[in-house]
Amino acid sequence: MAKELKDLTKRSVNYSQWYNELVVKADLAEQSAVRGCMVIKPYGYAIWEKMQRELDRMFKDTGVQNAYFPLLIPKSYLCREAEHVEGFAKECAIVTHYRLKNDPNGNGVIVDPEARLEEELIVRPTSETIIWGTFKNWIHSYRDLPLLINQWANVMRWEMRTRMFLRTSEFLWQEGHCAHATAEESEARTVQMINLYADFAEKMMAMPVIKGVKSANERFAGAVNTYTIEAMMQDGKALQSGTSHNLGQNFAKAFDVTFVNKENKPEYVWANSWGVSTRLMGALIMIHSDDNGLVLPPRLAPIQVVIVPIYKNDEQREKITDHVKPLLLKLKELGISVKYDDADNRRPGFKFADYELKGVPVRLGIGVRDIDNGTVEIMRRDTLEKHDAPLDNIEEYIKNLLEEIQENIYRKALKHREEMTRTVETYDEFKKEIEKGGFILAHWDGTPETEDKIKEETKATIRCIPLEGDKTEGKCMVTGKPSAQRVIFARNY
Amino acid sequence: MAKELKDLTKRSVNYSQWYNELVVKADLAEQSAVRGCMVIKPYGYAIWEKMQRELDRMFKDTGVQNAYFPLLIPKSYLCREAEHVEGFAKECAIVTHYRLKNDPNGNGVIVDPEARLEEELIVRPTSETIIWGTFKNWIHSYRDLPLLINQWANVMRWEMRTRMFLRTSEFLWQEGHCAHATAEESEARTVQMINLYADFAEKMMAMPVIKGVKSANERFAGAVNTYTIEAMMQDGKALQSGTSHNLGQNFAKAFDVTFVNKENKPEYVWANSWGVSTRLMGALIMIHSDDNGLVLPPRLAPIQVVIVPIYKNDEQREKITDHVKPLLLKLKELGISVKYDDADNRRPGFKFADYELKGVPVRLGIGVRDIDNGTVEIMRRDTLEKHDAPLDNIEEYIKNLLEEIQENIYRKALKHREEMTRTVETYDEFKKEIEKGGFILAHWDGTPETEDKIKEETKATIRCIPLEGDKTEGKCMVTGKPSAQRVIFARNY
Repeated sequence: MAKELKDLTKRSVNYSQWYNELVVKADLAEQSAVRGCMVIKPYGYAIWEKMQRELDRMFKDTGVQNAYFPLLIPKSYLCREAEHVEGFAKECAIVTHYRLKNDPNGNGVIVDPEARLEEELIVRPTSETIIWGTFKNWIHSYRDLPLLINQWANVMRWEMRTRMFLRTSEFLWQEGHCAHATAEESEARTVQMINLYADFAEKMMAMPVIKGVKSANERFAGAVNTYTIEAMMQDGKALQSGTSHNLGQNFAKAFDVTFVNKENKPEYVWANSWGVSTRLMGALIMIHSDDNGLVLPPRLAPIQVVIVPIYKNDEQREKITDHVKPLLLKLKELGISVKYDDADNRRPGFKFADYELKGVPVRLGIGVRDIDNGTVEIMRRDTLEKHDAPLDNIEEYIKNLLEEIQENIYRKALKHREEMTRTVETYDEFKKEIEKGGFILAHWDGTPETEDKIKEETKATIRCIPLEGDKTEGKCMVTGKPSAQRVIFARNY
Repeated sequence: MAKELKDLTKRSVNYSQWYNELVVKADLAEQSAVRGCMVIKPYGYAIWEKMQRELDRMFKDTGVQNAYFPLLIPKSYLCREAEHVEGFAKECAIVTHYRLKNDPNGNGVIVDPEARLEEELIVRPTSETIIWGTFKNWIHSYRDLPLLINQWANVMRWEMRTRMFLRTSEFLWQEGHCAHATAEESEARTVQMINLYADFAEKMMAMPVIKGVKSANERFAGAVNTYTIEAMMQDGKALQSGTSHNLGQNFAKAFDVTFVNKENKPEYVWANSWGVSTRLMGALIMIHSDDNGLVLPPRLAPIQVVIVPIYKNDEQREKITDHVKPLLLKLKELGISVKYDDADNRRPGFKFADYELKGVPVRLGIGVRDIDNGTVEIMRRDTLEKHDAPLDNIEEYIKNLLEEIQENIYRKALKHREEMTRTVETYDEFKKEIEKGGFILAHWDGTPETEDKIKEETKATIRCIPLEGDKTEGKCMVTGKPSAQRVIFARNY
């Protein structure tokens, strides 16, 4: 068994350490020389690219167009919307100078004090301000609306405690920014995008999510309303996986963006913004993987099938290679990404362990005896089950197996979430249950004060007010005041 | 005729102004609130995305993998390679602080002086330093080589004089970074990539380029050798369109990156890097467009065919729409991007001018009389020629027409470049010819001093020492010293 694999901490021993090690050992990412920033390695980036490509296609199908706005935002722009700057001021990377020079004292290169910017520039933590500053020139009449824009970009939030993919100072994301002529249209787009994210999470990532609305405490800085998708990790902690914000007219007012409506009257534009980030990589890793390494959903796996020849000499290797070639072609024709690994510097056992660690959904092993028997050994990564199968028409079998794995890991994650979701009546019960992790459904009086108290006493936050499910009224478990419906509490990443 | 079009400055009047106006009027990009940074608008970004997709495919076909490295580079990293920091120090955006706070004097939000970084961070102007700092951990044995990495990213160079797409403080690009076990392999990859860029420029952009080597003066900071592709714009100025740098062992030495070779001995790794940027957009706009607006090569046009119905009432519009529907389907089946514009808030004449301005390669106009005649009016953007054609099987005709346009604009640009390329014998002759623009082939003694003198006296630089063509020896036009071959001079963007 490969050294890397033997060394992987078990989830039951230390889930957090298991995650950190897995990210590195599976070659997804590593810490960089810059505090809180990571390097996304080729294998990790290949997964992100698959996510990007599918999300981009889904966005465009709804009429969204891509564009690109500046990385640096003038400080005065960030300050235009009061809540917005309040939310981001404490975690900004700030550009103050534009030139280095040789130190007159001979100590290498220093910042040139004469090259100080008149106005400091903020490395974008998000782009509402620069985009609405630009939209002012793009929007004049109701005929210019809706304006449906997305950008793929890097952003920076100077986080104090970082974890690869989950919370990094720089991360990659997409941010959609839409402008509408009516409040209703903007709300409909906000909901449409959270539904799109939920579809993506469930169909591509095999990750069940709960759609809901954020409480005021957890709302985006500058939003009227924030929708979220929340997923349940194996350790019972929740992970916010995507958000869509109804911004009302806040940014239109801050940047004076008006349009002439059909009645020929000026009106402020209605806005929403929505985003998912490389944080989804963290969710993907945590939700399916096991003590042997990554488990990837076939629809996002860079390598869907690996074929490992088992040989004792070059002659055997060649014989197997010739035998396997037609299968490689057939799999590629079916659009399946396949790797044939006949490298002679690693033994098959090492390769097996490595591809398990990397989460390749299906592995085929084939030796000379298999050729004589017309069979091949198939291992599926999700269950680690192995069996022999006839090589004839194996491509169709594999195609179906990939679909089955995709569905199976979704079902498994859903079953886990359901087992981890409980309803409580009293605050005492809540305090006991929250210790076991999971989603706890409870009544809440709707006030930030009560939410703060619960957070302080239990470290649990309201993940969302779910859109679907039980809508029965009740009484707040803490204050006894009226509650419109149960909300979802959890400890979270 | 549309107002926007009427207002476009003619190339013969002011080429530079024509370019600036065209970028804005064709909805490609606009200046942002941040000095020297542009907003890339959806129509411009759609062209860039087409470039990206094709380049990415071409890179991957040669074994390159994508990854992502941090935006911010520690100052000490940038300083490790002496020539490199010398080349970039004067145009760096520098992050010095990581937090804003409320001004105690009540003047809004200020940079928190207590949140000063111990070490300043540079917004990457290019990523050799952070990448070679990372490669140190990735490369141990010859078995880890070659390592073929690319990243799609934004970079910043604090330029004093900016022009949209051609020279902006922030720009988008790809930067490839390869590590090899031998000098020969690294040189071969450096040349392979400049050839790839030349293929891309010629096949996709319909832009003929000259491949060559840069003189020492024009070499990348830290490179042993820089290859370039140079294109000739309509005004007789050259535009450097892509570069590939053989970095020797400079960065491996600066970051102490060694590998154990096949003889089991430690050796520094050999490096190259190569990139193209949104500057290619500037080249694309300038090389083909005319006084009516953009001329786009069909292979990069976001909309390849536009169909404009000509109607007097809703009944006619519906009739035309029904008639056109099957054609839309057939074009889409052929992989042709088509837009049917039946918007009723703009007259056909306005639409025609607008799509000319936007460079849509083929326009079809169809009215009720055309339906009766079974014909359609076709306009090709490159020649502005119009004629009627039978609607039957028009999709095949259009497909071929798009190919013909692609070839025609390439031929036209090549003819222009050939007409603008002259050979001179004496420096007097050179001074006269350079005033007329174009590429001037002349003998040069190979010294930076002579190149500097020529630049100072004529504003012309050596664009490259061409790889192909005449290799006859001669004598330098300025000093009379020996010259190995003629080199290419031009004034340039």
